[in-house]
Amino acid sequence: MAQKLLIDTDPGNDDAIALYVALADPSVDVVGVTTVMGNTTLDNATRNALALLEHVDRTDVPVIPGAARPFSDELVTAEEVHGPGGLPEHVREALPEPTQEPVDGNAVEFIVEQAREHRDDLTIAALGPQTNLALALAVEPRIAEWVDDIYLMGGALTVTGNVTPMASFNFYVDAAAASRVVQEATPKLVGLDVTERVYVSTAEIERLQGEPEPLSTIGDILAFSIDEVRDKFGNDGGLASDAVLVADIVAGLLDYEDAYVEVDTTGGPSNGATIYDEHGVYGHEPNCEGALGIREDASYEDIVVGRLEELA
Amino acid sequence: MAQKLLIDTDPGNDDAIALYVALADPSVDVVGVTTVMGNTTLDNATRNALALLEHVDRTDVPVIPGAARPFSDELVTAEEVHGPGGLPEHVREALPEPTQEPVDGNAVEFIVEQAREHRDDLTIAALGPQTNLALALAVEPRIAEWVDDIYLMGGALTVTGNVTPMASFNFYVDAAAASRVVQEATPKLVGLDVTERVYVSTAEIERLQGEPEPLSTIGDILAFSIDEVRDKFGNDGGLASDAVLVADIVAGLLDYEDAYVEVDTTGGPSNGATIYDEHGVYGHEPNCEGALGIREDASYEDIVVGRLEELA
Amino acid sequence: MAQKLLIDTDPGNDDAIALYVALADPSVDVVGVTTVMGNTTLDNATRNALALLEHVDRTDVPVIPGAARPFSDELVTAEEVHGPGGLPEHVREALPEPTQEPVDGNAVEFIVEQAREHRDDLTIAALGPQTNLALALAVEPRIAEWVDDIYLMGGALTVTGNVTPMASFNFYVDAAAASRVVQEATPKLVGLDVTERVYVSTAEIERLQGEPEPLSTIGDILAFSIDEVRDKFGNDGGLASDAVLVADIVAGLLDYEDAYVEVDTTGGPSNGATIYDEHGVYGHEPNCEGALGIREDASYEDIVVGRLEELA
Amino acid sequence: MAQKLLIDTDPGNDDAIALYVALADPSVDVVGVTTVMGNTTLDNATRNALALLEHVDRTDVPVIPGAARPFSDELVTAEEVHGPGGLPEHVREALPEPTQEPVDGNAVEFIVEQAREHRDDLTIAALGPQTNLALALAVEPRIAEWVDDIYLMGGALTVTGNVTPMASFNFYVDAAAASRVVQEATPKLVGLDVTERVYVSTAEIERLQGEPEPLSTIGDILAFSIDEVRDKFGNDGGLASDAVLVADIVAGLLDYEDAYVEVDTTGGPSNGATIYDEHGVYGHEPNCEGALGIREDASYEDIVVGRLEELA
Ligand SMILES: [Ca+2]
Ligand SMILES: [Ca+2]
Ligand SMILES: [Ca+2]
Ligand SMILES: [Ca+2]
Repeated sequence: MAQKLLIDTDPGNDDAIALYVALADPSVDVVGVTTVMGNTTLDNATRNALALLEHVDRTDVPVIPGAARPFSDELVTAEEVHGPGGLPEHVREALPEPTQEPVDGNAVEFIVEQAREHRDDLTIAALGPQTNLALALAVEPRIAEWVDDIYLMGGALTVTGNVTPMASFNFYVDAAAASRVVQEATPKLVGLDVTERVYVSTAEIERLQGEPEPLSTIGDILAFSIDEVRDKFGNDGGLASDAVLVADIVAGLLDYEDAYVEVDTTGGPSNGATIYDEHGVYGHEPNCEGALGIREDASYEDIVVGRLEELA
Repeated sequence: MAQKLLIDTDPGNDDAIALYVALADPSVDVVGVTTVMGNTTLDNATRNALALLEHVDRTDVPVIPGAARPFSDELVTAEEVHGPGGLPEHVREALPEPTQEPVDGNAVEFIVEQAREHRDDLTIAALGPQTNLALALAVEPRIAEWVDDIYLMGGALTVTGNVTPMASFNFYVDAAAASRVVQEATPKLVGLDVTERVYVSTAEIERLQGEPEPLSTIGDILAFSIDEVRDKFGNDGGLASDAVLVADIVAGLLDYEDAYVEVDTTGGPSNGATIYDEHGVYGHEPNCEGALGIREDASYEDIVVGRLEELA
Repeated sequence: MAQKLLIDTDPGNDDAIALYVALADPSVDVVGVTTVMGNTTLDNATRNALALLEHVDRTDVPVIPGAARPFSDELVTAEEVHGPGGLPEHVREALPEPTQEPVDGNAVEFIVEQAREHRDDLTIAALGPQTNLALALAVEPRIAEWVDDIYLMGGALTVTGNVTPMASFNFYVDAAAASRVVQEATPKLVGLDVTERVYVSTAEIERLQGEPEPLSTIGDILAFSIDEVRDKFGNDGGLASDAVLVADIVAGLLDYEDAYVEVDTTGGPSNGATIYDEHGVYGHEPNCEGALGIREDASYEDIVVGRLEELA
Repeated sequence: MAQKLLIDTDPGNDDAIALYVALADPSVDVVGVTTVMGNTTLDNATRNALALLEHVDRTDVPVIPGAARPFSDELVTAEEVHGPGGLPEHVREALPEPTQEPVDGNAVEFIVEQAREHRDDLTIAALGPQTNLALALAVEPRIAEWVDDIYLMGGALTVTGNVTPMASFNFYVDAAAASRVVQEATPKLVGLDVTERVYVSTAEIERLQGEPEPLSTIGDILAFSIDEVRDKFGNDGGLASDAVLVADIVAGLLDYEDAYVEVDTTGGPSNGATIYDEHGVYGHEPNCEGALGIREDASYEDIVVGRLEELA
């Protein structure tokens, strides 16, 4: 039986690729997409999620809006990176107009209900700031026990940050939410330690761009980070952080280590930093699994491109 | 028609008096009591709320448990002040065993439902840390527009703190929650500026202690702070902070001023401090009403004792 | 014998008045003026100090420049309040060109030397950010034992701040320095609790403005805050915070209480806040004397204007 | 001509090795040793420095005590690591009684004087918390321009911390001082990124322990971290962080990259963290050189052991 997967997301280019990969893989059954502010506003994130589902004829998957702002911090988005609507303008124009409406409900209730119903048949993948998930845990702490795995896109355990020198974007946007989830959900943390190390090559991306829809636009989305990857990391290819997490869920890509982690919530220059107690200074038991390596026997590009081609 | 009142509370001695006053006053209709950790654990607070309602034969009022911990901070209680179960042991022993069970639901849902149903017929009085209310606002931000007034017990705008030199207890316990509520709920803030200034005199308390139940035990509850009031403020009487807030709701006791307020969430020595922009340094519009004075034409003692005697 | 007084200052309008009062009073002997950034840059503060001394023919008093920036924080000045050079332009134009050069040395060394030499014949009055004094204490901790009294202009123990809602300007500019001095110098803290409560009346100021030099320009300096006092406090008169401190030194104006105080150095919204443990929450012994009242038998206006007239 | 070297230090086992290496190498001329609290109290650090010099007959090198505490933070030492007096008891017992007295002066003055005198003939190596150096810079900012290089032992740019998960010990102890020095001294930062990667092998250490004095005791000092290195890093050998820095000065060991760095001074869980803007998020120019690699053509063990043997 397919693993049920609830995706909490703020699309976002990499969220889009992650969503496509999850939808394409028969081993997972996406039970719903909850949305959250982050890369863009909640309204844009919700609209983008609907458009992405429309694009691959998956309007059977419900979209449920969640938090329009962090729990207590001011709203920050990454539109200067992802585009003013969360996706590059030419991508948003290429995507179909959604025919589906968002579900009239709240992401927090949806997460609680799905967890209660599916128990350990359910995996949760939080690809944006952890606001929805933290609220769900605050309302119903048993979620953490009920479900199978909770994957968090976020953190920078052994590497420097992206949005600030200290913090990964998702932890930075709602550090209090990240802190709560890390404290209680025993999550699998997929952070910059691994997401910045694997790419889909420019050659593959260009090939996808030359294919008919939906691959053509998917290629365009993958292409959006090619320049950044070259300038920042001196590498070739497109980076899609959230897709690394989903690639691991569907095909096994990452090596995890038990880790004790906290999140800096001071509001200072290290706000949202992943406090990773690598050497056991605090003497606490591990509270999460941190993705610190790429499996030698797995190919990110093969996993991602292979699934995407299933959408053709 | 009586004003519907939802009481969110962490009883706690002063919460107990506040609850008695609200239940006794015919101008308000207590639609439910939601509980939260704070003065004691959630379980104790819930049990205490049930016992207090039993004590005055008001088992018609539902009790709905909420947050067992702050949103992202570690749990802190005030059992060294209020007693290890949230009330002095002799009080807990004098109160009847509850026959009512807590409602099988969550305070957050209850707050949202009551607000949706009663709209501006509803007033919310949050007498403990603002965790439940902040979560309710996070799940359903329209609460702030729907309901009539939101009263918060918390803050120290122009005076020093109680739990630390900088912070009032309720803001300190969950500063992120306090921050969220202050940002969005346009609350009426009832803080240490006024609550430490009004008392029920020792003479009146002793008189109540000599009356039959339930007044005798209520007198015992009022008596718990007499020593602290003498030592700390050099005044005579019992202090019941949360009852000041309810006294204002039922009879008009406080003078409010428009104020712009933020809450320190740094986790440092000023964590939970009320950042009160008295002189408009930030240039922001007011976001709350701060109780800064006691009405000259009102008597706290008369309001409180008068209502309590209705319970006899 | 006159009490020797070392004035550390960032003139600044109120510093100017404070300096005039000290120079005019025969009971104190100003052994030197050390300067520090604060209301303006160090260079402006030094030049202003020289010009003020020239203005009243006191070029016998040496001026020794100190810190051009806070210990570890970025430089912040208050030129939008005091004028772009630290004094209103018409005042700077009215003051004579200094004939004296600043001493070729450092304020820190000067403070240490004077303290070593004069021991308890010396009082130090720090009227600006406490950077110089903190550095002197760091180099020579015995200063605190050697000298008679150390007065600090700074703090807001029981009132809200001026530069932010939480902080007084001098503590805010170099919170680490303020923290160090409060920890070790057993200072007399003269803060907003008292400085915002006493004024020289507008009538007296206008009278001074009509007198010959130097009173005319001194009146102009006193006049600079009349509008702010009216708008912010609804009072009549000119406020000269630093002069309150000097008025207390020369004539006894303030009532002090033993207090335990810390300074917030988090860099957050409460940075520079005075953490005043009014009710003994921490259980520490007092580490300073806080000016919390105005003596009933003293008149600030009489003290200040009386001394100023000695300069005619 | 030998490069003049001023060593600021808190011995400390690794400081001892660093000092021996510097004293043994003819290419540097140690002009003085200033001491600072850190691994132990100032008094112990000073006494240890005198004993180490005595041990290798170098009482010609003056020892000048500096800061007994951090600028504004509370004193923290590492005696649980280095031993209650800063060195293991058997080492302190083996070292000779000092015949030299510490210089009657202050490290801050000494640093300023040496920098003024020797200008770019002088290199400063700060092997402990940067308190003395920060104070010297605060009193005389031109030091940074005058001298040749300023090496700081401290920081963790790309790796986790040692004293906390976020901070290296020296930056943690006085984060404000570290922040000041990083801002102004354009230092060469030698941090955990490199110091935890190079060792003197256990075999070499045991060989030294079998030699006559002073090598025998030097071997004992090197041996103190063998267990920690095995348990924490799974490596063989003794770690002497400060000696890595000195090895680079005397023989060239490290590869540096231009870097922009700040230091977290919030006092929160990331206090003392090295904020390394690896990817230019802030857009600031580099303000230091960070040691991020070990030169392929250099052997730490050969450099250190080679110099130590010169002491025989
Ligand atoms: Ca995302
Ligand atoms: Ca309460
Ligand atoms: Ca001043
Ligand atoms: Ca050291």
